[in-house]
Amino acid sequence: MEKRKKIIIDTDPGIDDAMAIFLALQSPEIEVIGLTTIYGNVYTTLATRNALHLLEIAGRTDIPVAEGSHVTLTVCTKLRIADFVHGTDGLGNQNFPPPKGKPIEHSATDFLTQQASRYPGKVTVVALGPLTNIALAIQSDPAFIKNIGQIVLLGGAFAVNGNVNPAAEANIFGDPDAADVVFTSGADILAVGINVTHQVILTDSDRDKLAEMNGNFAKYLCKILDVYFSYHHDAYSTKGVYLHDPTALLAAVDPSLFTYTEGVVRVQTIGITRGLTLFYNRQKRFEEVTEWNDKPTVKVAVTVDAPTVVKMVMERLMHS
Amino acid sequence: MEKRKKIIIDTDPGIDDAMAIFLALQSPEIEVIGLTTIYGNVYTTLATRNALHLLEIAGRTDIPVAEGSHVTLTVCTKLRIADFVHGTDGLGNQNFPPPKGKPIEHSATDFLTQQASRYPGKVTVVALGPLTNIALAIQSDPAFIKNIGQIVLLGGAFAVNGNVNPAAEANIFGDPDAADVVFTSGADILAVGINVTHQVILTDSDRDKLAEMNGNFAKYLCKILDVYFSYHHDAYSTKGVYLHDPTALLAAVDPSLFTYTEGVVRVQTIGITRGLTLFYNRQKRFEEVTEWNDKPTVKVAVTVDAPTVVKMVMERLMHS
Repeated sequence: MEKRKKIIIDTDPGIDDAMAIFLALQSPEIEVIGLTTIYGNVYTTLATRNALHLLEIAGRTDIPVAEGSHVTLTVCTKLRIADFVHGTDGLGNQNFPPPKGKPIEHSATDFLTQQASRYPGKVTVVALGPLTNIALAIQSDPAFIKNIGQIVLLGGAFAVNGNVNPAAEANIFGDPDAADVVFTSGADILAVGINVTHQVILTDSDRDKLAEMNGNFAKYLCKILDVYFSYHHDAYSTKGVYLHDPTALLAAVDPSLFTYTEGVVRVQTIGITRGLTLFYNRQKRFEEVTEWNDKPTVKVAVTVDAPTVVKMVMERLMHS
Repeated sequence: MEKRKKIIIDTDPGIDDAMAIFLALQSPEIEVIGLTTIYGNVYTTLATRNALHLLEIAGRTDIPVAEGSHVTLTVCTKLRIADFVHGTDGLGNQNFPPPKGKPIEHSATDFLTQQASRYPGKVTVVALGPLTNIALAIQSDPAFIKNIGQIVLLGGAFAVNGNVNPAAEANIFGDPDAADVVFTSGADILAVGINVTHQVILTDSDRDKLAEMNGNFAKYLCKILDVYFSYHHDAYSTKGVYLHDPTALLAAVDPSLFTYTEGVVRVQTIGITRGLTLFYNRQKRFEEVTEWNDKPTVKVAVTVDAPTVVKMVMERLMHS
């Protein structure tokens, strides 16, 4: 069991965050050593409450929850909260009772730097929301980028339209300055963008199958998924939902489900394309020095074995 | 012959501009009614000189040349001149003698609006440089966007890296503000980006074939092409050159060589992705109002029949 990857999930639950957290707890390849919370699908306070609630549903109150930043890295930006995707409570408007547990005393940033320092090279952060906590960890501890094993992040829209606007994906748009800090930090980064997660769809019929199961997670998820399905139907005319967060989680669990490319990613932080992720494939040698020169490279997911991802999500969430 | 499309080429010659101009003169489907000049590969003064020179080489001094803007739409931007691609004279460092002719008294902007007004719906502008002249025509004459038949423009890097830096293609980067004016003007626009023109390559062996011909244009072009081949070898490690301008010209001559998509294009005018063209495919309905909402659509080339384009270029330039 010592060979299991240690995982910290940085999360803004969120319906697909709930799926990813349950999936993580059902994945024998990894050990979830903590959740850190962030605004995005909901405000940070509610993200913390939902993270505690989800761990109580799972019977895993042994896992610590550390509350993250309430504001973007460069303060004074109005937060964009996607409650129209996930419900005002972030969990499908189910009015769940408040959790009994509390977050730990340490902040998300402190928890991230402490755990990375305690298990150098052994901790993978799976970042499912805006990257403020990760950027703060990078800025507060110069050793963090070396101590952290890998940062697998759900974020970006590489060479496709975004989901907040044509230019930007929601997690990057949530804190573009933080995202640019993370992408250019030199840490071992794997970005899974919506160009990949939009290939991974849980269909109406998959949900029907889930509804027939008696498993704890399956029953819970079927309750909260309605809002998420409605949003996708209205916004995308799809009969199904994108499995953003579970897909990113599985990139940490089993990298062989994906193919990757490597290059430099910069984030546009101003103007009409604020939040855009621009990947430089290093195929051309430019005459002029560019903003991508001499920056560390990151890995960006290109393809995904979508049928296997959906199958793993279904199997692991059905039988519990 | 009255059915031939009337074409104005807005150009910054430029080696591949020279090819496109000769190609246009050799294309029976179109009638070149004027050249307008712009900075880009060279400064505007030199672009005018080169346009006059090329028409003299072609024996077509009957075609008027109207000099265009010397500065970007929003003044005080330092011009980016690509003399490292085309030679300091823009034509492969051949030190050709100055032309005998002169540009007409009217500016490029006046010429564009006058011709569009004279032949409503009948004039196609093929824009091969930064879009300053076209934006000025749009701003100076409210009827221009209705009078002009189509604007076929070489510009943009749609979902691929740029050629000035990872974000921006050279013509759009040359005047991003002008480009945004043009893309959002409501005119009938077809954009041919480097995502398409990078598929159209004149190889070393094509050049060798050209060198064996006795045609006037073939002999001339073989002289000026060396610099262009050298640049491509150094920057892209390709054994061949991209036929940017001839490809865009052929999009006006024979649209059936291309496939297209339609959507809204905005240009980022500031920050690290200044000059980026962002195409909105209209597949998602966004929750928030975006900068792409309620803007007119344009056509963007997606695929090109590259072998046929190269064949047409070779055949039309060989035999003259």
